[in-house]
Amino acid sequence: MSEPAHTTGEGSREIRILVDGHGGDAAPAMVLDALQMVLAPGFSAQFSGTLTLGIVGQEEVLAPLLRARGIDSRVSLIPATDVIGMCDSPSHALRRKKDSSIHVGARMVRDGYWDALVSAGNTGALMAISKLVLKTLPGIDRPAIASMIPAVDDGRTLMLDAGANSECTSDHLVQFAIMGSCYMQATEGLDAPRVGLLNIGSEDIKGTDVIKLTSSKLAETTLNYIGNVEGTDLFGNDVDVVVCDGFVGNVALKTMEGTARFLAHSMKKELTSGVVAKAGALMARSALNRFKDRVNPGKYNGAPLLGLNGIVVKSHGGADAESFVSAVSVACREVDENLTDRITQSVQEMVES
Amino acid sequence: MSEPAHTTGEGSREIRILVDGHGGDAAPAMVLDALQMVLAPGFSAQFSGTLTLGIVGQEEVLAPLLRARGIDSRVSLIPATDVIGMCDSPSHALRRKKDSSIHVGARMVRDGYWDALVSAGNTGALMAISKLVLKTLPGIDRPAIASMIPAVDDGRTLMLDAGANSECTSDHLVQFAIMGSCYMQATEGLDAPRVGLLNIGSEDIKGTDVIKLTSSKLAETTLNYIGNVEGTDLFGNDVDVVVCDGFVGNVALKTMEGTARFLAHSMKKELTSGVVAKAGALMARSALNRFKDRVNPGKYNGAPLLGLNGIVVKSHGGADAESFVSAVSVACREVDENLTDRITQSVQEMVES
Repeated sequence: MSEPAHTTGEGSREIRILVDGHGGDAAPAMVLDALQMVLAPGFSAQFSGTLTLGIVGQEEVLAPLLRARGIDSRVSLIPATDVIGMCDSPSHALRRKKDSSIHVGARMVRDGYWDALVSAGNTGALMAISKLVLKTLPGIDRPAIASMIPAVDDGRTLMLDAGANSECTSDHLVQFAIMGSCYMQATEGLDAPRVGLLNIGSEDIKGTDVIKLTSSKLAETTLNYIGNVEGTDLFGNDVDVVVCDGFVGNVALKTMEGTARFLAHSMKKELTSGVVAKAGALMARSALNRFKDRVNPGKYNGAPLLGLNGIVVKSHGGADAESFVSAVSVACREVDENLTDRITQSVQEMVES
Repeated sequence: MSEPAHTTGEGSREIRILVDGHGGDAAPAMVLDALQMVLAPGFSAQFSGTLTLGIVGQEEVLAPLLRARGIDSRVSLIPATDVIGMCDSPSHALRRKKDSSIHVGARMVRDGYWDALVSAGNTGALMAISKLVLKTLPGIDRPAIASMIPAVDDGRTLMLDAGANSECTSDHLVQFAIMGSCYMQATEGLDAPRVGLLNIGSEDIKGTDVIKLTSSKLAETTLNYIGNVEGTDLFGNDVDVVVCDGFVGNVALKTMEGTARFLAHSMKKELTSGVVAKAGALMARSALNRFKDRVNPGKYNGAPLLGLNGIVVKSHGGADAESFVSAVSVACREVDENLTDRITQSVQEMVES
């Protein structure tokens, strides 16, 4: 296999995205459907670079599917023999499945053959393998999973860590703040993203010792640190990056998911009760569907694993093809905006200042 | 002032509820409106004991209001000169406002004049003063705030701690589990409430060291411990009591509130968009209103402060009179069911077993 060229000429960088053919509940069909959508002309027009696509996984499974869709000449197939299951423990996947699609994909990114790996597979395994193979960036102790949360008036808030690190020191949290700020600068074009620390009140005396220490350290950085924020602020327009440890972040994310599901369930019950006439219910239901679409977690599918020496994006395991395309576009944007270099540079600057 | 009788005869316990006249955004008018609703015959019929009502606060403010409503002969007025503001720090309120309505109310409960204090005031101050004045029950190191969460099919889940203790040891969490289980037994009539530990995955290897240790300790108690639960499970029917530290619990609660507000905002936007005809929108809106009512946090207003040597219930600061009545009924039920004695007995049994 030849190494793809790193650039295709001055000003036109290649964006080489490798997708995991075996991650996700509906893989591999869902992944192939997504690739077809990505190959449509509209998709690559969003980015300044030229898009190159690859899929990593079992050749005997993926080759016929690529041919059947007529995209075998436009998508490189990178063979990997093992498949990591959603129930495999990260440590088992890490040590026993070294020829898995995730292992091979991460090595391809590490060795410069591809710019980014996108996978809808097992989160723990993806993080563990990526960390082992790619290592962290200089100045970053631990990578974090970042999650984009929809906010009012089409806004969005980046929360990190969303679950990779249950226990964090203040230094880890400060590093998350730097990475989150870089991410929102690079991908959303914000000049000085507002960084908040997730706490249980806005006053300085609130929270754990780690949180109080983190707050005083953040105040000394050149970040646009706005202080403590609360769970209610995640959906508002007053903060761009919310920093927390992975335990709290994961509980917050799953509570959001639970609340939304509970409210949708209750709403459906109201709409099918006898009081609302059928016509009204139908009309309301169409509004409900559009609303579901707006707040669909898949709308912002694609959680970047930040802090790695290479770009890795996690798609929701239950993603459909359209959502998986979102995850691919997150990866494309990171490559297009040189996110890895930017984070390295920012950490360097913070350390020096 | 004479001490009210502890019982009014065999089998008919008195339920003596003292409410804080100054807590909450709309106090004192909201509190007085609530008292009028509580005095209506339907309310006390829910309980086996006979209801006696008191209000604590500034005499010159509350006496005319009681008279104006014609309930001055049916509600005892307990004078207190200080008022704690929503922005007073707990330590300031604790040390500098010793004749506040909360201080006086807590002392009245401690000295046996009243059975329970209900306040919509400053949570931190209410907890700090209650802990100082009432002390904790034997075997309980720290009181916790418990919050009732609506679940599907009219179910409910008790989550604790909801914000009193940012940092907890495994022993604290086990004590929360015992208190929560007792509470659900006493007030919901459950035989063996299912207790879950809030974690970031259902597997035993997930979470912090404190969480893992807590899980192994819980498995050794006689509680009906079902293992790890996640944020999504709060709204389901598979768990009755969810245990977590106050930092995580508070973030979860505020994230719920934020999600619900964001979804309501988005839904409203959809319903007022041009696509839905006015008639449909109106019908859908009435469904939305009923839905809001169903998931209204006020529906379960009244967060018990568990583990104190006396009954204290916190109402939401933004409660209206109807919500405040819910908080009063939470207190009534705790008195009616001898919650404090039950918790003491359960802790005793757990220690001995």
